[in-house]
Amino acid sequence: MGHLVSARLKVGVIGAGAMGASHVATLAAGVPSAEVTRVFDMDTARAKEVASSVGAEIADSADALVDGVDVDAVVIASPDFTHVALVLACLRVGKPVLCEKPLALSAEEAHSVVDAEVALGRRLVQVGFNRRFDPGFRDLKRSIDDGSLGEVRVLHGIHRNASSSTSTDDAGLVTGSMIHEFDTFRWLLDGEIVGIRVESPIVGGFRDPQVATLWTSGGQMITAEVFVNAGYGYDVRVEVVGTGGSATLEPRTPVVRRIAGSAGSMIGSDFVAHFIESYRLELAAWADAALTGTVVGASAWDGYVANLVAASGVRALGSGAREDVEVPERPGLYA
Amino acid sequence: MGHLVSARLKVGVIGAGAMGASHVATLAAGVPSAEVTRVFDMDTARAKEVASSVGAEIADSADALVDGVDVDAVVIASPDFTHVALVLACLRVGKPVLCEKPLALSAEEAHSVVDAEVALGRRLVQVGFNRRFDPGFRDLKRSIDDGSLGEVRVLHGIHRNASSSTSTDDAGLVTGSMIHEFDTFRWLLDGEIVGIRVESPIVGGFRDPQVATLWTSGGQMITAEVFVNAGYGYDVRVEVVGTGGSATLEPRTPVVRRIAGSAGSMIGSDFVAHFIESYRLELAAWADAALTGTVVGASAWDGYVANLVAASGVRALGSGAREDVEVPERPGLYA
Amino acid sequence: MGHLVSARLKVGVIGAGAMGASHVATLAAGVPSAEVTRVFDMDTARAKEVASSVGAEIADSADALVDGVDVDAVVIASPDFTHVALVLACLRVGKPVLCEKPLALSAEEAHSVVDAEVALGRRLVQVGFNRRFDPGFRDLKRSIDDGSLGEVRVLHGIHRNASSSTSTDDAGLVTGSMIHEFDTFRWLLDGEIVGIRVESPIVGGFRDPQVATLWTSGGQMITAEVFVNAGYGYDVRVEVVGTGGSATLEPRTPVVRRIAGSAGSMIGSDFVAHFIESYRLELAAWADAALTGTVVGASAWDGYVANLVAASGVRALGSGAREDVEVPERPGLYA
Amino acid sequence: MGHLVSARLKVGVIGAGAMGASHVATLAAGVPSAEVTRVFDMDTARAKEVASSVGAEIADSADALVDGVDVDAVVIASPDFTHVALVLACLRVGKPVLCEKPLALSAEEAHSVVDAEVALGRRLVQVGFNRRFDPGFRDLKRSIDDGSLGEVRVLHGIHRNASSSTSTDDAGLVTGSMIHEFDTFRWLLDGEIVGIRVESPIVGGFRDPQVATLWTSGGQMITAEVFVNAGYGYDVRVEVVGTGGSATLEPRTPVVRRIAGSAGSMIGSDFVAHFIESYRLELAAWADAALTGTVVGASAWDGYVANLVAASGVRALGSGAREDVEVPERPGLYA
Repeated sequence: MGHLVSARLKVGVIGAGAMGASHVATLAAGVPSAEVTRVFDMDTARAKEVASSVGAEIADSADALVDGVDVDAVVIASPDFTHVALVLACLRVGKPVLCEKPLALSAEEAHSVVDAEVALGRRLVQVGFNRRFDPGFRDLKRSIDDGSLGEVRVLHGIHRNASSSTSTDDAGLVTGSMIHEFDTFRWLLDGEIVGIRVESPIVGGFRDPQVATLWTSGGQMITAEVFVNAGYGYDVRVEVVGTGGSATLEPRTPVVRRIAGSAGSMIGSDFVAHFIESYRLELAAWADAALTGTVVGASAWDGYVANLVAASGVRALGSGAREDVEVPERPGLYA
Repeated sequence: MGHLVSARLKVGVIGAGAMGASHVATLAAGVPSAEVTRVFDMDTARAKEVASSVGAEIADSADALVDGVDVDAVVIASPDFTHVALVLACLRVGKPVLCEKPLALSAEEAHSVVDAEVALGRRLVQVGFNRRFDPGFRDLKRSIDDGSLGEVRVLHGIHRNASSSTSTDDAGLVTGSMIHEFDTFRWLLDGEIVGIRVESPIVGGFRDPQVATLWTSGGQMITAEVFVNAGYGYDVRVEVVGTGGSATLEPRTPVVRRIAGSAGSMIGSDFVAHFIESYRLELAAWADAALTGTVVGASAWDGYVANLVAASGVRALGSGAREDVEVPERPGLYA
Repeated sequence: MGHLVSARLKVGVIGAGAMGASHVATLAAGVPSAEVTRVFDMDTARAKEVASSVGAEIADSADALVDGVDVDAVVIASPDFTHVALVLACLRVGKPVLCEKPLALSAEEAHSVVDAEVALGRRLVQVGFNRRFDPGFRDLKRSIDDGSLGEVRVLHGIHRNASSSTSTDDAGLVTGSMIHEFDTFRWLLDGEIVGIRVESPIVGGFRDPQVATLWTSGGQMITAEVFVNAGYGYDVRVEVVGTGGSATLEPRTPVVRRIAGSAGSMIGSDFVAHFIESYRLELAAWADAALTGTVVGASAWDGYVANLVAASGVRALGSGAREDVEVPERPGLYA
Repeated sequence: MGHLVSARLKVGVIGAGAMGASHVATLAAGVPSAEVTRVFDMDTARAKEVASSVGAEIADSADALVDGVDVDAVVIASPDFTHVALVLACLRVGKPVLCEKPLALSAEEAHSVVDAEVALGRRLVQVGFNRRFDPGFRDLKRSIDDGSLGEVRVLHGIHRNASSSTSTDDAGLVTGSMIHEFDTFRWLLDGEIVGIRVESPIVGGFRDPQVATLWTSGGQMITAEVFVNAGYGYDVRVEVVGTGGSATLEPRTPVVRRIAGSAGSMIGSDFVAHFIESYRLELAAWADAALTGTVVGASAWDGYVANLVAASGVRALGSGAREDVEVPERPGLYA
């Protein structure tokens, strides 16, 4: 039976915060094709706690983890500013890497990853846009792809957090939160975002919520609201409107309580819990692909373009005007 | 018991098309404080049919109807271009009038009604923004007014028709359909719209759907989609988002059918049927108010401001930019 | 225009409690074909208050009201034990009467009304089973009648009150509350109930909730829960299950509030408010029919059969066994 | 890192039909703590296909699989009549076993498993009542356990299949399908079923649907409808009604399509797909427990009691009366 065991992907996880710890737990509890062998975090105590919970070891440094002989592939869940350097390190040693979004802090930085992959001549990078693996989002995409909505004309997106400790400034809302929408829309529509405007009802102070308008290469318009201090819970919804009908993704827990004059279902506030199945499917798909030398999900190119749209979004937030998104030609590697 | 009978408002209805015929039927079947005595339509056969269905007589002309001794008050449901002249005629003879939206084809024209009322020194005009009387919309407004949503930051409106035979050109979508949203937002928020942008994913050809962005005097932003050829049915929804939570109006028929792999409820395509209870409550409130010499609902001023916003909306559709809405000072009559 | 006025049905209302007061208000505000002329209640102050609110007079006694020259037709909303005598009084003077449910306290008593109508040779009695006029229930019935559910096999009914001041003993739950279900099921299925069992999880003390099983002439089985102290609100739901699918009536207010970790809609506790539109449609249909000498809705026969099923239900509550319902042959008058 | 690998539970799966194949795939794709090493099926080709899809081997016989050195624990998904002998074989060799429901064809047979475990002095058997691991059902149970529903009085269960190739006779509906409800109700309420009645609207021919009434040791009543040829899809719902409110489990896919006059969500017909996450969580919990020498989920005792209730249910189907369920004292092993 040894052949099965040898097929298991040995994974090193960099970053043991909420996201990293969740990925470690999910890999251990839900992804048979992988095993977590090493964990690194600047906070060694945290790294130890997370590593030991699944029988893994800690690494002395992120670089040591990437280079380790007991690491076949790497998950990056460390702070955003570390992403690019770590992804490039993985590319240098030819190891598959799943990097949390955003791929980079800027489009330029993200493009250096694309350049490195192109130079390498093969793809190793997946960017953690987990919604592509969410059963609800996949069902929504199916409604588009099977033609039942006719020609798509408009999308509406809602993305709300109860509160946020990470998206805490105007630009951060675009580059850290709304970036999920950018990838979602590109993926749902198999198209590019060609223009963006970002505005807020708030003038003076932290501009939250933000309301974006986007235009696509397919001739659609999109409205997207991101509100990271919405208070009541974590809430992600999308409506796709076509000439043949509309499809709305609106997740709801299956239990309705009728108590004291109200019929209601619970809304959680934890985005990891909300999307936990998508993370599991993402990690499983990534590990399975890594074992066969392929890459699925959002590519480095997709990560770059998301950064590119975000950059235009941040500019738009400042200019108050529509900013174009100039997407360069896609390298053949990502065809 | 004769005192009850004498209290009944004798109503003349101008226009016997779909809306007018519905108002005649609703008055007869659901508004005890009113009785339809006269009906006028350019199409005499149609006027006769509608009038006779409720035991009323036809009038020889709209003017004759307005002047008629057996007409205490007037409902105007004739083509939009006739509204202002007819309302002014009612004002001249001092009769209460419920005028279908829009009050006028232009803000200037609408203002002439305001001027006439101000000159008269008392209000007689109600504009038929029926949503103000819809139980669902009133419930939504209650959620705002009672503070349970905290401070309102963003609204999202959806307004779709299966198809439209009246809103058939770019500007008409704004002045004929989206005008409902203008009044709805002003009323829900007890505020003014101070800026508007109207765009469409369609370039070349009939620009339907349209996506509007609006700004209010209360510092809110609003997105509004109007799509008059959405195919699947008549669908009006609004979400109000505040710092304390969100409230969504999404009417649904109470019967869910589980058949052949789907659990669904019906969506009608007839806006009159959809809002029939709001029309009844509107007509009843109007008649009751007329009998006591008062006016409720949307005033001539509200009708004027809706036209004013629509004018900015049409300009915005052309300019592609945000257009300000400059609302003059509100005359004391409408305080 | 006097012909319209003369067509108005002069209505006397007996009983000015919650139900009677609601009927008076609904007739005045929503039924143009009727006007309330007289109100009687044992509590004269209450009668005066209700009467004066719509410009009507009080009557010196129920009999005086029935006999009054300014009363064309009678609504009975007085205590249940008075119903039969009052209905018979109306029949004696040949006046149409809408009697609140139940028609009588016993099947025998109810049958005396049937006998009186049969002797009279024409129908004058409508029993106030308002759900037959509720748009939701009518939509549900349509789903059955149009064949989209195939052959109906099973129904499930839920009928809950937050609390009840009227259904306060074991038998009263059957005769006062569950009797609505008996008529609803007969009407939905165009069939008879042929057997009934009524049980409760409560042994000792007030047997609330009660769970009934019913069998129909059409070969269906039905479960029905009645719980008059359910606490959370007024809640009436029905599911109809056939070989082709299922249809569930589950009314929901159209506003969903997302607040503090929950997405919910309101459930009221007032059954009159819940069904207010059905009462208006019931009263309007009754008045319109009365003006043309006909009767719609549930007949005296239907009222009698509901009492008959209730009697079997009360027996079943005692016996713990299924009790048959022996419906005599229907007189030709009710064919 | 070898310690991780050695911790993996080597699983043999008996039965490679729909359920068995699903378990094999789920173990391989979603349960890292287990690996499928052997598969047996009477149909060798089918066994080979399923085994090879996950890199496992086939076994020569069920007994050989149970005895195999490369099998630490066994999943039984073969035909129902084989269950008891296979479970007893596992007990003989002291290997943990997850046996699909029903544990046995009769309560007597099931009790022999209990006897064997008691004689062994330790528990090794889990019965595959997967709903205990379903997130929705767990959420429902939480609503009961946290007291938010007050004292539970009534439950209503719905269990419908589009069609069934396994529950094809009257008793089979009880022993094969409704048995899920028996375990669900016991588990939700932490109580015993003390009485049962099973009836059907169908007289003559296959008695489908069936309507059961159950009584619990906690003084609750339960209605349960099982309809295995409901046509429209797989549909499992439960409502729990207490003195403090009601909680309804009604799973719904998160995408609502508005197309051609209807707003609807999809209902699948495949129960494996519907409950796939519960199967994964069940298998994972089983494997994790097996690795630590414990048992979770439904025990052999629970399996036996479910068979006992089913036996009373089948008797009730014949007698038309309530049949008591006499649960013997629970052996200390299952305390």
